[in-house]
Amino acid sequence: MSIPSRLQRLQHALAQHRLDALLVSHPPNLRYLCGFSGSSGVLAVTEDKAVLFTDGRYTAQARQEVSDHAGIVITRNAPFIAVAAWVSGKSAGLGRGPVRIGIEGEHLSVASARKLKDALPGRFRLRPKPPLIEQARMIKDGQEIARIRAAAELGASLFPVALGAIRPGVCEAEVAATMEFEARRGGAEGMSFETIVAAGARSALPHGRASQAPIPADGFVVCDFGVILSSYCSDRTRTVYVGSPGKKARQAYAAVLAAQEAAVAAVRPGVKAGEVDRAARTILEKSGLSRYFTHSTGHGVGLEIHEAPRIAKAQEEVLQPGMVITIEPGVYIPEQWGLRIEDMVVVTQQGCEVLAPSDRQLIII
Amino acid sequence: MSIPSRLQRLQHALAQHRLDALLVSHPPNLRYLCGFSGSSGVLAVTEDKAVLFTDGRYTAQARQEVSDHAGIVITRNAPFIAVAAWVSGKSAGLGRGPVRIGIEGEHLSVASARKLKDALPGRFRLRPKPPLIEQARMIKDGQEIARIRAAAELGASLFPVALGAIRPGVCEAEVAATMEFEARRGGAEGMSFETIVAAGARSALPHGRASQAPIPADGFVVCDFGVILSSYCSDRTRTVYVGSPGKKARQAYAAVLAAQEAAVAAVRPGVKAGEVDRAARTILEKSGLSRYFTHSTGHGVGLEIHEAPRIAKAQEEVLQPGMVITIEPGVYIPEQWGLRIEDMVVVTQQGCEVLAPSDRQLIII
Repeated sequence: MSIPSRLQRLQHALAQHRLDALLVSHPPNLRYLCGFSGSSGVLAVTEDKAVLFTDGRYTAQARQEVSDHAGIVITRNAPFIAVAAWVSGKSAGLGRGPVRIGIEGEHLSVASARKLKDALPGRFRLRPKPPLIEQARMIKDGQEIARIRAAAELGASLFPVALGAIRPGVCEAEVAATMEFEARRGGAEGMSFETIVAAGARSALPHGRASQAPIPADGFVVCDFGVILSSYCSDRTRTVYVGSPGKKARQAYAAVLAAQEAAVAAVRPGVKAGEVDRAARTILEKSGLSRYFTHSTGHGVGLEIHEAPRIAKAQEEVLQPGMVITIEPGVYIPEQWGLRIEDMVVVTQQGCEVLAPSDRQLIII
Repeated sequence: MSIPSRLQRLQHALAQHRLDALLVSHPPNLRYLCGFSGSSGVLAVTEDKAVLFTDGRYTAQARQEVSDHAGIVITRNAPFIAVAAWVSGKSAGLGRGPVRIGIEGEHLSVASARKLKDALPGRFRLRPKPPLIEQARMIKDGQEIARIRAAAELGASLFPVALGAIRPGVCEAEVAATMEFEARRGGAEGMSFETIVAAGARSALPHGRASQAPIPADGFVVCDFGVILSSYCSDRTRTVYVGSPGKKARQAYAAVLAAQEAAVAAVRPGVKAGEVDRAARTILEKSGLSRYFTHSTGHGVGLEIHEAPRIAKAQEEVLQPGMVITIEPGVYIPEQWGLRIEDMVVVTQQGCEVLAPSDRQLIII
């Protein structure tokens, strides 16, 4: 789906949701709807117009990226003030009743909403918009899947790089640095989140950003990493063992791998997100490890590293072809060790396809 | 100022601002007040208590970082629901009048504020808090300045690395990758923002993130880069010329350098931020370039890459010893070229000190 048709679909949905205009300021939504990649702007959308308001830092960039899709207004001050004036003007012909302006309640700050409200005439009402854009973004089109695939492949290529760098005594950050360097050389615009390299007892931290700590002589090393390529994110986790894994470590690895495989096998159109989570948790219950699986099984990935749907307990969202999600069960024994295995999958007509698939047997270094 | 005294000072200020409790969720403010470095949590502060609410991903990390400073509650769902229950309980003894809960209006989303409001008893009122924490954070203590200095020095060490990588035909991202690799090796937790390497016509984009574009044979290359070290940010810009600069380019460089020097010379306690901006703009007016200086002169730096005070037109904030700000005038001729020179300075008792000072004459490659 091209940018003009995304915008048109949104415009068609406004009346149905009883909105006279919609103000979009969340950067990934701006990127999706009008191509703008700057970090600050507001897209005002009415049934027949779309105008991006941004500031002088982005004049050239907005012209390049947006001029085919929407009008552009460069503002001197906070864009919301200019937006308010524009929206008031556009709505002058709308009679005397209330005018309903949709805002992104999940992203707009209380302070910005108040400034906007104060700048609008009294009959204007701010309404948190329904998740129209987020729902559209869940289902990726062919071009988006091609981009996500390319990101996933570049991301996957960093694991062999990590394997070349991981050895006892090397600090976690050095491993991350080596991976990030190759990501950049491979064309990544950046990393999609802070690279996690968590070794030894730090592997028990599900969000153990690479630190100056050296890799110990014996223990798991969790590597969770992703790139941004053509604006789309990748996300992957591999866990290796440095030294000689004992029986418990081997069993836990096998259980997490089995849980991941079971969850991947559960992904197909029509299945609820909660059922996929359940599939992973059931396997870990059998090994007595489910209470150490302290996060959800996965999440959508696209223009954002975390987006809809959530693959978590009791989630009712029904999987549909074109969704791209992570499957990432893990087990964390506090202050001792942890491990996680993660891949990205695309929901297809029949089931799902793992992006950049690879062997995931325990690698011992 | 240690973490306990930061928290105490805030607690003492609550009554004066007629707040019964304050809910802090902006991550840098959490870091500042209780040491927590996770990306999601809420610190509830009353006159005599402080409790951090976060989720299972951060159990070990919160225990490590926070347990000396505040209570810790690990929540299963959105922390605001648990926070609401705790705050209601704490406030049971407060009589029957309204209970005022301060929130971070600049950061809290409309949706989170609504969830919080719905979870609180009817007599509770949410009030956007005054910028107490942001004002405290503006004035850095000795330990903070030491950390910022170390970050600035590590950041500065990346410019020679860039010089070694910049040559015609090399892509901008490769230069950035080389710098980021050295930053990590030097101990950086990450970059403080997306590294800007903008060459040729792209130098006219004030926010030209390093792209796959090759460096042309002739033109400016703007490098704007910073690291995060021990949680504190650095920020620096150097512009070099690849090829043979003409008279206009040389004159523009000299004018921006003079503007930067004039602004640095204007920094001392008691001066308004707007006067520092004025000093830079006045020099560029003399060269007829001020209309191409499309952004403000600088900003505070600390736990965030952009924080108070703003060094911009007509800003009334008075500079005080302990503030750390950037001075970064630039000139951008749309679709042709641009340049910027930036340093960080600490306001001292007498004037200011440039962090990691270096020669800034035009380097030609």
